[in-house]
Amino acid sequence: MNPLCFLTGTGTALPGDPVDNKTLGSTFNISEDWIDLFVGTRTRHFGRDLATGEVTHTLTDLCAEAAGRALADAGTDPCELDFVVLATATPDALLPATVNETADRLGLTHLPTYQLQAGCAGAVQAIDVARALLAGGHRTGLVVAGDVTDRFLDTAFDTSRLAPQELVNYVLFGDGAAAAVVTAEPRPGAVAVHSLLHCFAGLGRAPGQIVGWHGAAAPDPARRMLHEDYKAIERDVPALAREILWELLGTAGWGPETLHHVLPPQLSGRMTEKITAGLGLPPQVREVSCVQETGNTGNALPLLQLDLLMNRLQPGERAVSVVVESSKWIKAGLALERSATDSRAEAP
Amino acid sequence: MNPLCFLTGTGTALPGDPVDNKTLGSTFNISEDWIDLFVGTRTRHFGRDLATGEVTHTLTDLCAEAAGRALADAGTDPCELDFVVLATATPDALLPATVNETADRLGLTHLPTYQLQAGCAGAVQAIDVARALLAGGHRTGLVVAGDVTDRFLDTAFDTSRLAPQELVNYVLFGDGAAAAVVTAEPRPGAVAVHSLLHCFAGLGRAPGQIVGWHGAAAPDPARRMLHEDYKAIERDVPALAREILWELLGTAGWGPETLHHVLPPQLSGRMTEKITAGLGLPPQVREVSCVQETGNTGNALPLLQLDLLMNRLQPGERAVSVVVESSKWIKAGLALERSATDSRAEAP
Repeated sequence: MNPLCFLTGTGTALPGDPVDNKTLGSTFNISEDWIDLFVGTRTRHFGRDLATGEVTHTLTDLCAEAAGRALADAGTDPCELDFVVLATATPDALLPATVNETADRLGLTHLPTYQLQAGCAGAVQAIDVARALLAGGHRTGLVVAGDVTDRFLDTAFDTSRLAPQELVNYVLFGDGAAAAVVTAEPRPGAVAVHSLLHCFAGLGRAPGQIVGWHGAAAPDPARRMLHEDYKAIERDVPALAREILWELLGTAGWGPETLHHVLPPQLSGRMTEKITAGLGLPPQVREVSCVQETGNTGNALPLLQLDLLMNRLQPGERAVSVVVESSKWIKAGLALERSATDSRAEAP
Repeated sequence: MNPLCFLTGTGTALPGDPVDNKTLGSTFNISEDWIDLFVGTRTRHFGRDLATGEVTHTLTDLCAEAAGRALADAGTDPCELDFVVLATATPDALLPATVNETADRLGLTHLPTYQLQAGCAGAVQAIDVARALLAGGHRTGLVVAGDVTDRFLDTAFDTSRLAPQELVNYVLFGDGAAAAVVTAEPRPGAVAVHSLLHCFAGLGRAPGQIVGWHGAAAPDPARRMLHEDYKAIERDVPALAREILWELLGTAGWGPETLHHVLPPQLSGRMTEKITAGLGLPPQVREVSCVQETGNTGNALPLLQLDLLMNRLQPGERAVSVVVESSKWIKAGLALERSATDSRAEAP
């Protein structure tokens, strides 16, 4: 079976210095011990100065930085790009689309751009759109995914009024962006996408996550702006992750004994441990994780993991990326392989 | 040259009763004569009761209604759908994506869904993604586009403080959604897409339109939530519309003398007249317009025009849809033809 497409270079961007649990806890009046115990994330980055509330990095800033690094990593000149696909839940504005502000920063013109409104599955959705565009005749595209989750942090807000399912929004997330160059043909250093899963599975199921917005008019006080059904997420994500893993292996025709790396869903450090343990993988499979250092960066996270994988995946090795979007329950993921004849990967 | 794809059935949804200029003017303390003269739109629909401020229709309501009609029009069972692509600037929430809430309403499951964050060009972008997905092996997809522009109407706001470039946001827009079934193969009644233009052309150019959003944190008073550079739009859209028309005709290999219908950009009734007059088309070409009855419905508008076209386009006739997105300047459009052997069109 021919690969669907190739991931040729990656790049990432995390804003400012890492914010530890002590700083996060003292800023929002949340127990540092609770963050350590409940979330298990050590640090995250924010595109906002927590002390002053000032925005330091827009999503465009992060996306353009990550994209520039991915292009350099791939050795791809921006003028070679046939299209750009960007995925985010938190665009800088409703209009213009952040993908077009990012294209402007990269000096791109006269190419189609697409921005997907998505949650955790956005990076896979963007690669899915890229794959389809490559099947339609394009040769080289750029995929970018990122979020500025800090837009929902209010340093002036008294968190003691928050129920735990709202409090988690202050401690689970981090900001960041990541990018990959996607090509129709293999190139030195490229990783092949052998199967891709992207499937709406939320029929009749309540959303696990709600993120609202409001416009120029006064906000409706009855409307919840942010909500996590943390219990539903905790209950359902491990089973969905298992389904995704085995569907991807099945489509690729790979036995689990041939797998070397797994990129699990990364809602928090604590949940990642449970999910990975529940996948039922043989012991040789190594986990590729970033959540303990970055927090849940939403759309960016699967590409942040992929960026780590690119340097770890040896010639002939296989990896599966497993992604669950809990907003309205999307199953997504990638089965990836580095060609046995590729010599670019670093020594293990 | 084989068509890129086929538009097989269409459907629309406009919320509530039409709102005339007298009602709009008295609600927002704006001169009815100014609306008549400056905008030239007679009526529009809103998913909000202007008297009470209450939301009467969500974007999901409108998209599900339009999609149901398009499926019925195409004679397509929802279980035949391989994917859904939805385009909007004004989703019901940042998460879950409105496309997934719409899929849930339609009873869909286990298929990929995509939501494009876009302005006026969103409908063409969605057909572009559909075309690529069909090229990648899918057979039948659903494209939906819509906006609830009323989210930026604040009936409590004193419009006398607004500059004209902000006041236009109260009188230009309307709410609505429209949908089309897109297929890889021709079907009775289908219209063929012979060429499609979707091209970012905003490098180095200031946005013509900015639409912001607020999260849970207190809004930044320095940030403009809504802005139209109406002068730039008035100056640049006619020239861009001409470029789009002739690029589409060129790609399709069609002489202007073979064209029967044009679907022009519809920012307002007044501007549409100027744009259409400036296209330089031969006199036999008829304009397909809806803006005077619907206002500028953003993402929905090109599909609302297409819905009108479907009943007017006779066997063997050709049409061009011309779309300009002024947010960050996107050129978009479609070259459409009904097969000479198709007998479904109504008598003229």
